[in-house]
Amino acid sequence: MMLGIPDDDFIRGNVPMTKEEIRVLSISKLRLNKDSIIWDIGAGTGSVSVEASFVSTEGSIYAVEQNPEGIELIKANIDKFGCKNIKIIHGKAPVILKDLPDPDRIFVGGSGDATEEILDVSLKRMKMGGVIVVNSITLDTAYISEKILKDRGLDVESICVNISVSKNAGNKTMMIARNPVFIITGRNSKVDNNFNKVGE
Amino acid sequence: MMLGIPDDDFIRGNVPMTKEEIRVLSISKLRLNKDSIIWDIGAGTGSVSVEASFVSTEGSIYAVEQNPEGIELIKANIDKFGCKNIKIIHGKAPVILKDLPDPDRIFVGGSGDATEEILDVSLKRMKMGGVIVVNSITLDTAYISEKILKDRGLDVESICVNISVSKNAGNKTMMIARNPVFIITGRNSKVDNNFNKVGE
Amino acid sequence: MMLGIPDDDFIRGNVPMTKEEIRVLSISKLRLNKDSIIWDIGAGTGSVSVEASFVSTEGSIYAVEQNPEGIELIKANIDKFGCKNIKIIHGKAPVILKDLPDPDRIFVGGSGDATEEILDVSLKRMKMGGVIVVNSITLDTAYISEKILKDRGLDVESICVNISVSKNAGNKTMMIARNPVFIITGRNSKVDNNFNKVGE
Amino acid sequence: MMLGIPDDDFIRGNVPMTKEEIRVLSISKLRLNKDSIIWDIGAGTGSVSVEASFVSTEGSIYAVEQNPEGIELIKANIDKFGCKNIKIIHGKAPVILKDLPDPDRIFVGGSGDATEEILDVSLKRMKMGGVIVVNSITLDTAYISEKILKDRGLDVESICVNISVSKNAGNKTMMIARNPVFIITGRNSKVDNNFNKVGE
Repeated sequence: MMLGIPDDDFIRGNVPMTKEEIRVLSISKLRLNKDSIIWDIGAGTGSVSVEASFVSTEGSIYAVEQNPEGIELIKANIDKFGCKNIKIIHGKAPVILKDLPDPDRIFVGGSGDATEEILDVSLKRMKMGGVIVVNSITLDTAYISEKILKDRGLDVESICVNISVSKNAGNKTMMIARNPVFIITGRNSKVDNNFNKVGE
Repeated sequence: MMLGIPDDDFIRGNVPMTKEEIRVLSISKLRLNKDSIIWDIGAGTGSVSVEASFVSTEGSIYAVEQNPEGIELIKANIDKFGCKNIKIIHGKAPVILKDLPDPDRIFVGGSGDATEEILDVSLKRMKMGGVIVVNSITLDTAYISEKILKDRGLDVESICVNISVSKNAGNKTMMIARNPVFIITGRNSKVDNNFNKVGE
Repeated sequence: MMLGIPDDDFIRGNVPMTKEEIRVLSISKLRLNKDSIIWDIGAGTGSVSVEASFVSTEGSIYAVEQNPEGIELIKANIDKFGCKNIKIIHGKAPVILKDLPDPDRIFVGGSGDATEEILDVSLKRMKMGGVIVVNSITLDTAYISEKILKDRGLDVESICVNISVSKNAGNKTMMIARNPVFIITGRNSKVDNNFNKVGE
Repeated sequence: MMLGIPDDDFIRGNVPMTKEEIRVLSISKLRLNKDSIIWDIGAGTGSVSVEASFVSTEGSIYAVEQNPEGIELIKANIDKFGCKNIKIIHGKAPVILKDLPDPDRIFVGGSGDATEEILDVSLKRMKMGGVIVVNSITLDTAYISEKILKDRGLDVESICVNISVSKNAGNKTMMIARNPVFIITGRNSKVDNNFNKVGE
């Protein structure tokens, strides 16, 4: 099994979903391990949690979402893909995070107006060697997230991703732009990235 | 083990290497299976082959490269990462492809002036349910590849990826642009993408 | 008077209009002179012709358009902006071009399926020291235009422009992507760009 | 005379220069009038001042620069292009701005670590109907500028411009990316944009 689940394979409803390419880039930046404890904050449809569960097969994924419609979709997607290690956490971050175990990896797909508070709690709880990845479609959340992560002494890398996708226009090919997304990654120490040997 | 090996983890030399984000997107578009037979044409440093070997652990990867310097780097990276299922094929595509088994998945990272010939042979040999992914930094190879894949009746999707990466500039953050890369994906029938259940 | 007419100032209808930023970049690449003879092929709403008439105040602009709805919009915009030196040419390029005087500057905003023929005639007719600028939203027209211009020995520069525009999202700022546009510029000799002295 | 002076036509030295496309877009967003009073803050090589002087032929342009090397280049470019209405202001903004007449148009090409102070003074001094345009290559200056302009009640539009430029690679065409630039525009009331009639 592998990364790269197409968007259409997920049950979606009207809840915003991280697009395929951004999802796979974000998961890649998280550098998940087989047994990672992962917080997926603002889980939306659960697409990131589902895809992470294919990688961290022996880990635990906490899909945190406050929107009841999202919770139903996460349940449906977990069921569809047969994920055994995703726990659905219905409630508002950061308050709801207090009962979760400390994470190795944190993905913040949506933080609404609570970006600072969520990052604050997340960074206090993230274990050494941890990685946090924030997605942002706003200049504000990108700027603020980068600033907070840097201020806490994390090793920060941000990328801004502009993708356009082909569409047939008669016998020609137009390129249709997707909105740019910032992917901000912070590491709180030299991550042991486990890439030394296959199978270890 | 997982996708997302950082560029710096590879032994590189002066051979061009697909950048981390493009590599992970390309592998994602390939929708590798555990047992895929993969051609990596224009393998360069072997970075795509290495990363694919972490996904297709029971498959076979053929790293095709004509440049002797590349061959040495591929060997070094295979050794570093302990990959057991990558076979190095030293020679010029498409001629050198004739002795390889028919592939399920084809990645064309570099095709020089032989794009048409390489795609021609590749598409004749790719098995049903197969996926081919072409990377291009030139308008020409993007256009020609898309045209050939469409003309053969494949289901084609192209994306153009513009990524900029943060860099500290005093106490501010500049965004440094990477050159745009086209990722052209062709499928020769409804791919059985195996995403039904974890573990299957 | 100056460049930079906002899109909303034009009378538009349902005819596609070159966006403000692409229009100003294209006119800038044309390096119009006060007395330039300009062909605007695929004039659409006439926005490029109108803006060019503010620069080439003593020149002649031929707004070529085959779509009757476009012709009405061009008339309306000429009237709104009081342009005296735009001639409306209703018909299909390249045939309709044969009665026009040889141009110093050519803008190809739309060429449908007749790109090759239009460029062929255009380049035969363009005067020495001339500049042609092609806009394309398709990979095909971009590739073919560049190839034709290069094959004719022109000095060619292409840019691909990805612009995203801010939009309020609550109290934050989202960036909304516009589709990428290729602007291909060809010069048939060292253009005397007349930038030596103000007022000359 | 017209917009679109190529970068190579300017005398440049080692001072950073706004690139041709960004310059023309910025000047376009400024919607200069024939008689505008313009502050060009962080004038660098003077390229924006020079190009503005071709549009605002009866206006006054104040090229503000603290770097002595920049001052020499501005002088050289004014001389080369024969501009009569550019005044060189050697000193550090915002302090140096206090003796200048209130501006109709303000371009902030560089503000170093004094972005807030420069914008603060600029917005207090800008006349009604005025336009301010800020260029930024950093996320920080983009975010802060947008925020300040919005907080002051201006009508704000930001664009992020990603341009790639063609380069011959053998007989193919590569696209080389330029770093993204934010162009933030603020208007302090409905600007009378003077586009009603040519010649008025």
